[in-house]
Amino acid sequence: MKGNAIIGQSGGPTTVINSSLCGIVQAAKACADIEGVYGMRFGVEGFLGERIIDLGREAEETIEALRRTPSSALGSCRYKLRDDDLPRVLEILKKHEIRYVFLIGGNDTMDTIARVEAYCRGKGYELRGIGVPKTVDNDLFGTDHTPGYPSAARYVALSVQQAGRLAADMRMVDQFVIHQTVGRDAGWLAAATALARKHEGDAPHLIYVPERALDREQFVSDALDCIETYGFASIVCGEGIVWSDGTPVSASTERDRFANVEFGAMGGTSAAIVLHGILSNAGAKPTGSRLRGEFQITESLPMCAIDRASSLDLEEAYECGRRAVELAEQGTTGVMVSIQRSRRSPYHSTLGTIPLAQVAARTKPMPDEYIAANGHDVSPDFLDYLGPLVGELPSYSVLANIPIGGAQ
Amino acid sequence: MKGNAIIGQSGGPTTVINSSLCGIVQAAKACADIEGVYGMRFGVEGFLGERIIDLGREAEETIEALRRTPSSALGSCRYKLRDDDLPRVLEILKKHEIRYVFLIGGNDTMDTIARVEAYCRGKGYELRGIGVPKTVDNDLFGTDHTPGYPSAARYVALSVQQAGRLAADMRMVDQFVIHQTVGRDAGWLAAATALARKHEGDAPHLIYVPERALDREQFVSDALDCIETYGFASIVCGEGIVWSDGTPVSASTERDRFANVEFGAMGGTSAAIVLHGILSNAGAKPTGSRLRGEFQITESLPMCAIDRASSLDLEEAYECGRRAVELAEQGTTGVMVSIQRSRRSPYHSTLGTIPLAQVAARTKPMPDEYIAANGHDVSPDFLDYLGPLVGELPSYSVLANIPIGGAQ
Repeated sequence: MKGNAIIGQSGGPTTVINSSLCGIVQAAKACADIEGVYGMRFGVEGFLGERIIDLGREAEETIEALRRTPSSALGSCRYKLRDDDLPRVLEILKKHEIRYVFLIGGNDTMDTIARVEAYCRGKGYELRGIGVPKTVDNDLFGTDHTPGYPSAARYVALSVQQAGRLAADMRMVDQFVIHQTVGRDAGWLAAATALARKHEGDAPHLIYVPERALDREQFVSDALDCIETYGFASIVCGEGIVWSDGTPVSASTERDRFANVEFGAMGGTSAAIVLHGILSNAGAKPTGSRLRGEFQITESLPMCAIDRASSLDLEEAYECGRRAVELAEQGTTGVMVSIQRSRRSPYHSTLGTIPLAQVAARTKPMPDEYIAANGHDVSPDFLDYLGPLVGELPSYSVLANIPIGGAQ
Repeated sequence: MKGNAIIGQSGGPTTVINSSLCGIVQAAKACADIEGVYGMRFGVEGFLGERIIDLGREAEETIEALRRTPSSALGSCRYKLRDDDLPRVLEILKKHEIRYVFLIGGNDTMDTIARVEAYCRGKGYELRGIGVPKTVDNDLFGTDHTPGYPSAARYVALSVQQAGRLAADMRMVDQFVIHQTVGRDAGWLAAATALARKHEGDAPHLIYVPERALDREQFVSDALDCIETYGFASIVCGEGIVWSDGTPVSASTERDRFANVEFGAMGGTSAAIVLHGILSNAGAKPTGSRLRGEFQITESLPMCAIDRASSLDLEEAYECGRRAVELAEQGTTGVMVSIQRSRRSPYHSTLGTIPLAQVAARTKPMPDEYIAANGHDVSPDFLDYLGPLVGELPSYSVLANIPIGGAQ
């Protein structure tokens, strides 16, 4: 089917979402059926205002350089498409003879494509709509993992590894450090920091994920135990963690456009700050003296740190983009490209598909077998799953600390 | 003079302080007069408890690997040496026949060496004490810049550059981002983020340093202007910025061991959070609708991110360590190694010395000529100063954004 193609990016950026964009543009330009290759500025919100650019006229070097450019080069939005927007969408598609729609995003985005494609079909306008997965949260259903997650995981694991060295070296000054990661309902990113450990006692010591409720007394007791055992406590929490009674640890009451409470650095009362306050007022063992520590809230930095991207992630994101065009060319519509792990060790994957409606309706919290029984750590199984996606973390010098005057 | 040498690290770590440690250890092991090469665990605080390790017995690979290891491998402290500690210091020095003391630190550390060296001299115990500079704050007097600063500068500039891309792409969602850097009294690190700019309109748009008071009305007005002009505002503030009436923007009342108010992520009321609250309640132009944005507080992460170190910084830190040993071998005492810029372009430097007492008594805020007249930016002179220390930042793809339907 001859026609033009349009590409859009939605939701929070990732480090590798522009790699997917590059893959789609390059494959679409090489596709005989696809004539113009267009881009939506600022997702469907921009599209409704006809903010459409001609990606086919960008220099080839500019498109190729997207593979080392973080964030969403087309601009993003968080607009929830309304049913009464659909006639306008169809009008613009028709006006510009667009027969191929590629959106890179999460489950809200997959819902958008599914609704647009169904509406157009009902109106007799043939359209091929394919989704390309992206989210640092890794909570998309039907794919082994989501492009963007391995790179964000690498960022948070590196940060916790490096800050863990710092905390160990500064234990005479500060006794704890609390890191907060994004991830409203799923603990994938918080859990990823477990990769930081190389030696017994290494950070992180306690990892709290939204999938497990947190008991306040247990939290203080666990942190004090770490300080007693290791000299300091390195603590990681997902932004959406909840207390045993179901209330969020974050005291935020801000709501985003989808009426979800914002747990990140928007409200000034993030979970990490609340936990910091609790520990600061707890007494250290055995002295009872007040504890000291710091919190780290990097919020969206792991979504755009291209210098820390996982090389596997960059490559897979690109291939997912190319695959979306191949599928559309073959006549496929209404699916999202998925990554299927075909071998666990050494890691090998192939690309598959999953119907958009299935992705849109579900999320993927961490499975029970990836969370340790104590509720504040991950399982070895999870490390097997994550390790190949992130790649090796650096090793640092560890002094033997031989006291003077010992036997030679 | 034959004797043993001891090395200590003090204060907040940096990414390259272990490079200086490596330089000292390797030079000391090669020095004919120096017998044992010892290390203080956790600085003078550990030294007073005789927590002394034998660095001469560490494997050569372990010592060499310090050049790519962040934080303070010996452990650090923030202990302020009291006069009544001095007899105990002398007792331990005598007991272990230590004649060479090398401390890597900031001005409090230089004060410590100066006092120990003077006390020993008064008691007829010959001691050579040399300081090696380090601080991410760059506020040490008598040196062109301080090892540790270029690497931390690179980290914050990269973060603001990458988050600037993200903010530009997400402008339909969030209108501003506020980054906070460490630096109690000096704006060197906040100012360094200016290196992130490659194109007109790039982040950061507003840089606030402690050297210039901030007017609340002006701040809101400047931020709104940026949002109107660029679609979003990227704002950077030093943790210690003050309002026009002299009160700190941070509402923190926590104090550290030196009775300084803590402005960082310790109090939960950091400057960035206060500024975030002010902007969140301001009305956007011209609609008057509420503004949205996020804050980023990375706190100590720029002090330990070895993967983002400046290669010049790593090299200079190492050479400062080696030079300290050469100076002591030649009989010098009571000085800190300093970096003297001998040519501005292309950058060239030599190592000099400055008396410890001068470093201990003073700090180095940003000079007026490095701050723009408007009070919220840096001067071209400052960029000339900083550029060669940090090295080139990456360039990213910039789409031409050609609207469809235009002339071919």
